[in-house]
Amino acid sequence: MPSLENYRRESDYSYAPGIFPSMEALKKRPETVRRVLFHSKLESSPSVDMLFDLCQRNQVRTEIADKALARISGKENCFIAAVFDKVQDDLSQKRNHLVLHSPSDKGNLGTMLRTALGFGYVDIAIIHPAADHFDPHVVRASMGALFSLRIREYDDIETYHSAFSGHTLYPFMLKGALPLHEAAKQQKPPYSLIMGNEGSGLPESFVALGQTVRIQHSQEIDSLNLAIAAAIGMYAFSSEASADL
Amino acid sequence: MPSLENYRRESDYSYAPGIFPSMEALKKRPETVRRVLFHSKLESSPSVDMLFDLCQRNQVRTEIADKALARISGKENCFIAAVFDKVQDDLSQKRNHLVLHSPSDKGNLGTMLRTALGFGYVDIAIIHPAADHFDPHVVRASMGALFSLRIREYDDIETYHSAFSGHTLYPFMLKGALPLHEAAKQQKPPYSLIMGNEGSGLPESFVALGQTVRIQHSQEIDSLNLAIAAAIGMYAFSSEASADL
Repeated sequence: MPSLENYRRESDYSYAPGIFPSMEALKKRPETVRRVLFHSKLESSPSVDMLFDLCQRNQVRTEIADKALARISGKENCFIAAVFDKVQDDLSQKRNHLVLHSPSDKGNLGTMLRTALGFGYVDIAIIHPAADHFDPHVVRASMGALFSLRIREYDDIETYHSAFSGHTLYPFMLKGALPLHEAAKQQKPPYSLIMGNEGSGLPESFVALGQTVRIQHSQEIDSLNLAIAAAIGMYAFSSEASADL
Repeated sequence: MPSLENYRRESDYSYAPGIFPSMEALKKRPETVRRVLFHSKLESSPSVDMLFDLCQRNQVRTEIADKALARISGKENCFIAAVFDKVQDDLSQKRNHLVLHSPSDKGNLGTMLRTALGFGYVDIAIIHPAADHFDPHVVRASMGALFSLRIREYDDIETYHSAFSGHTLYPFMLKGALPLHEAAKQQKPPYSLIMGNEGSGLPESFVALGQTVRIQHSQEIDSLNLAIAAAIGMYAFSSEASADL
């Protein structure tokens, strides 16, 4: 077991800071949890008891690690953290995907993962360069949603596309051809909702990839926040599908 | 003119940090801008030139204020900031409103203001206690959208409700009676979309206020992020209305 230090992208393990994310790690991916760190001042509570119980059942070691926790959590106090192995998942060929092309903000990324889980998008592709979804900040912002999702990183959109050639691609672009509600009505599953970078959106070349979609908004703003746009896209596609049942 | 200091809620003025928010203040509410502070190392650019031109046309004083800018912007460097008067607006009786009940996170609040402007919700009610929408962090997160909106604060929902008794109220609640797409279809304008606090949502008593709405999501997550829920609500109501045209 390596000594604890600040998280680095090169590490093969990361931290789930906080009781809720740690609990999610233990519930959904117990086999990836190496150990659970807790602060000597951690007080007992029903959630804390449940967490220790889960550790015992899964034979996960727990240890007091005040200094390591201070280092991991920075300004925001955190009295518990799960140390987990970073693993790449295989995405489903049958299910709809959320594809994030070069997302750069950790908070946005975590929020999108959480929203994706909320709308049943369990398969997430992240196209590089991109923020690291294993970063403790992302894990925290996702509130542990990460551990219920299948996430895979790709070097470029072509690699992703050839792995899932049966998926209909819907790139979300400011000048997308179809308004979102139309695209959602005509959806051809399995499909991939593709969202671009916070600042630059998707490259123009994505027009040729599939059916481009726009979320109509007033001229008063340049664009919607990325996590907002992704959420609206997932809401519209998933609610249209359930309305058909 | 008081000496510059960190922003305080009690002040009758605030700061728009950054070139884009400052520009929005000067374009949309020039009469409220007291002066524009800039850093001695600010470099010339087309946007900077345009901003100085706007100051001149509106007889707004500009001044070098390196120390004040460092204090205002904290860690994030900011080379320009507009100092503006805080004014309470009157909301429209005819237009649809976004009502934010006790929002507590500044970033969320700014994002919601920006999204509201994007979907044509220009009238915003904020029910206390709540984060301060004039706080420079909110102004920055809103990317200046604040200056294009009419925003008014209320002590409680009853005061708001009696001021706009003709508005149909739609409280968004986890156990809301109507799914969002149904509520959006049946919308009776003018209306108010009411969103609760990040952690606690809306009080149970809001059930009696109007037609409660739920955004359906999987059981895998407890709730959606507030800014995400507000955005989906505004998208659904506004896109359903434009589909009718």
